[in-house]
Amino acid sequence: MSSPKKQILVLGGGFSGVRTAMMLEKMLRPEEAAVTLINRENYLVFRPLLPEVVSLSIGLTGTISPIRRLCSRTDLVMRAVEEIDLKDQIVTVSSGFRPRRPQLRYDYLVIALGSVTDCNGVPGMLEHAKPFRTLADAIALRNHVIRVLEEANFETDAEFRKKLLTFVVAGAGFSGIELVAELNDFVRAAAKHYRHISREEVCCILVHSGPRILPEMAAGLASFAQRQLSKRGIQIILNDCLVAATSEKAVLEKGGEITCNTIISTVPSTLPQVLQDLDCAKDKGRLSANVYLELNGHEGNVWVVGDCASSNTISGNPVPPAARHATRQATTVAKNICATIRRGKKSAFAFEGLGKLAPLGHHNAVANLCGIQISGFAPWVVWRTVYLMKMPGWNRKAHLATDWLMNLLFPPDLVQFRASSASGIAEQYFRTGETVFNEGDMGDSVYMIQQGECEVFKLKQGRHQSVAVLKSGEYFGEMALLSDKRRSATVKAVTPSRLLLIPKEDFNLIRSSVPAFGSFFSELAQSRPAS
Amino acid sequence: MSSPKKQILVLGGGFSGVRTAMMLEKMLRPEEAAVTLINRENYLVFRPLLPEVVSLSIGLTGTISPIRRLCSRTDLVMRAVEEIDLKDQIVTVSSGFRPRRPQLRYDYLVIALGSVTDCNGVPGMLEHAKPFRTLADAIALRNHVIRVLEEANFETDAEFRKKLLTFVVAGAGFSGIELVAELNDFVRAAAKHYRHISREEVCCILVHSGPRILPEMAAGLASFAQRQLSKRGIQIILNDCLVAATSEKAVLEKGGEITCNTIISTVPSTLPQVLQDLDCAKDKGRLSANVYLELNGHEGNVWVVGDCASSNTISGNPVPPAARHATRQATTVAKNICATIRRGKKSAFAFEGLGKLAPLGHHNAVANLCGIQISGFAPWVVWRTVYLMKMPGWNRKAHLATDWLMNLLFPPDLVQFRASSASGIAEQYFRTGETVFNEGDMGDSVYMIQQGECEVFKLKQGRHQSVAVLKSGEYFGEMALLSDKRRSATVKAVTPSRLLLIPKEDFNLIRSSVPAFGSFFSELAQSRPAS
Repeated sequence: MSSPKKQILVLGGGFSGVRTAMMLEKMLRPEEAAVTLINRENYLVFRPLLPEVVSLSIGLTGTISPIRRLCSRTDLVMRAVEEIDLKDQIVTVSSGFRPRRPQLRYDYLVIALGSVTDCNGVPGMLEHAKPFRTLADAIALRNHVIRVLEEANFETDAEFRKKLLTFVVAGAGFSGIELVAELNDFVRAAAKHYRHISREEVCCILVHSGPRILPEMAAGLASFAQRQLSKRGIQIILNDCLVAATSEKAVLEKGGEITCNTIISTVPSTLPQVLQDLDCAKDKGRLSANVYLELNGHEGNVWVVGDCASSNTISGNPVPPAARHATRQATTVAKNICATIRRGKKSAFAFEGLGKLAPLGHHNAVANLCGIQISGFAPWVVWRTVYLMKMPGWNRKAHLATDWLMNLLFPPDLVQFRASSASGIAEQYFRTGETVFNEGDMGDSVYMIQQGECEVFKLKQGRHQSVAVLKSGEYFGEMALLSDKRRSATVKAVTPSRLLLIPKEDFNLIRSSVPAFGSFFSELAQSRPAS
Repeated sequence: MSSPKKQILVLGGGFSGVRTAMMLEKMLRPEEAAVTLINRENYLVFRPLLPEVVSLSIGLTGTISPIRRLCSRTDLVMRAVEEIDLKDQIVTVSSGFRPRRPQLRYDYLVIALGSVTDCNGVPGMLEHAKPFRTLADAIALRNHVIRVLEEANFETDAEFRKKLLTFVVAGAGFSGIELVAELNDFVRAAAKHYRHISREEVCCILVHSGPRILPEMAAGLASFAQRQLSKRGIQIILNDCLVAATSEKAVLEKGGEITCNTIISTVPSTLPQVLQDLDCAKDKGRLSANVYLELNGHEGNVWVVGDCASSNTISGNPVPPAARHATRQATTVAKNICATIRRGKKSAFAFEGLGKLAPLGHHNAVANLCGIQISGFAPWVVWRTVYLMKMPGWNRKAHLATDWLMNLLFPPDLVQFRASSASGIAEQYFRTGETVFNEGDMGDSVYMIQQGECEVFKLKQGRHQSVAVLKSGEYFGEMALLSDKRRSATVKAVTPSRLLLIPKEDFNLIRSSVPAFGSFFSELAQSRPAS
């Protein structure tokens, strides 16, 4: 009486997704189900430690843990989730080295795609505010801060130098507080090493819409935290918020303006696009789930965990979007999937939280642990210990502990990692007979022949027939981009060819802004022989 | 009888440049001279350790050392050198946050700009071969290799998987050998963690034009090294070289073709563009210097050190482009600048080299030390110790030693750091009254108004006069780019505006390939009112 092996698909490799896969590996026998996890990166990011990457209190790899190590029986697919079809139970992922978007079928789906920074409300935020959610964000912010210091050191105009050295952090929740504390410590410590920067010129400003910082914590702890941050030179602006951002300044709702070069947003979050596009029950901008963490309307088939879920505990309290809740949600989901496969009893989510902790930099923290409020050095040690314990794997624990030790012993590092910020537009070289793309491929870029000749083939009655030869100065590949379809022909180089490739995203940006560019390609597409 | 303080400019922050600045700080009193060092990064890269970044045997920061720490009295300018005017003794550097290219005057100039990978000879190399010279290159290569493993693991087509898992390294000099040894060790060790990759599928191929590897070393050691590498599964192809590279394969001179996804070039090097443009004596593609390391024709005024210099020792032997020679050249240059300022006697360069070492991965190395040839584990320990001693600063030494220790204790890391590869094309937001650029600024991009209005002003008889109002759908900024001049007008936003910005480099790429795009902007520029 064995039923066929079930396919479980976990979308997202954050705390909640990875923990779900780990628990499923523990609870289910390999012959019961196969687990596949889809995530854009092959590592789990320990988000609460990201501010320490900016100051390099820990090494770049200290905040991350390889997913393959954590759940070795799970198939990891390092791609982005592009489409979820709840009706046909199919998930489409992005293309890899080849322009094909694979589709994965599932019996059970776990959605753990988290949230993304939402800049839509405030003009200029998307363009000028730096996000702070991923490891890449943290590295980019670090590089930016160091570049700012280098430029300020070289700058002779005092006013421009002041602008360079002003940093605005929007949002005083946990992540905003941790970030501004680390950033302030780091910039002030680093400034000592720059001969033409005085520490008094550095200005970190925290802007928060509420009447006090850390709304998640008790008022007493929040005001302790506020005093600590003020004492270290951080300006705190309450009851106000950003209404616009430009490359020159941050504009506040009450009319104030802060001339600055750096704005970092830690505030509002929203669902990733793929979940926004999903046609299902939503609540407060998140996916609506029941106490068993099943997606409403898809019970017994789809589960939601972590930041993208809106659900209540069994006693009716809303579950906050925090890592400690997400990991426990993951256990509940794994249990419930197990129960569904084995026709057992489902578990309701009941975790109400143990405590709250916010590090304030400088070996200081505030905490509310099991109802007891503490502040100062003790909770900071607790905080470090908790994270060290939570960090999965001994390898990681050892690395993290070493980093922290080295950091106590030595001054901060000032090196900038220049991540190559090459443009998406690139040149490619093809030899005679090589294929540029195949009929039926995804259309992900437009090509221009800089040198050489290419031939276009179409499949007619099962045979490839040549339909055109394109020469230097000619273009191809625009049809799939303009109509958002697959490639309608195969193109091969007939002589050694050098092509300029414009990726879809750049193509669309230029097209929407330079009508001459867009209409040129529209006309070109129309002039092509119909297939 | 005090002469005015001299300005010494050091171009380049590699071993040779940084060492020159360090020695100048030691030898000269602050009132004698001011030293300025110009480098694109604020850290020195320990190039011989870069292959270990690919395998993450050492942390990302293990290979680098902050220049500010090493020479604290030197003014560091984190910019690129764009132009050297030997006649007027002026160096122009790239622009920072503001579009201005500062000019720095010098009394004494030290050129230590190293060399860059030269892909011009081989078609497709520039586009498809990965360079391996900088830290960014090493990080990019690591990310690429991990992406390849992830994709191969997900790939069901055996032939395509084989292509993905084939890595070609061109050049079997020191850096080629170190890289292929580390890469091979890393990929094979990592493959164990991928469920659908077998170690037999991994193929690292070393291609070298000479009759044996490591031409810098004695034949006996080279053949020991070759046996070691072969034993570990590396294929070695001698007496052949790459004649073309595409996204599909590496093409060899003797007609062979290797289907592969990764080609890494460690071979020929050439002068950076700014030195190629320099009108002075050159020899074997490098700047020609005398035994005092003075640039021929600019004696007593300009010195050359490191990879960009071609010079002989006092006994007439050519100086090889190696780190140990570069650091000693730096000392000679510092002495000679000192002698020039104090009217003392100049020193000739006399260092002939002590020994040669090449690590082979797997705790193995070959070495020729003071005439004695050794191979195996002992020279590997020597190699590590030498680098640990050479690494400047106790902080760095401790980090490096810790990394190596951790690496002996724990398996390799598989995390990929995704460096944001955002396109150069970007959107910007400007508030009413904000300046997009000023008359006289460097022209570094073209703007298109997506939303809003911008006003154009020109300075006439000392006053700003409005010459035009541009609306959504209009463009500006192309004139400075087309004519390579400075901005001929000031542009400000008159309503909140969203602009699309195309950087100069992207603009020129598209212009040269899409004549419609180029001619559109040429016509636009001609229609503008003359200034």
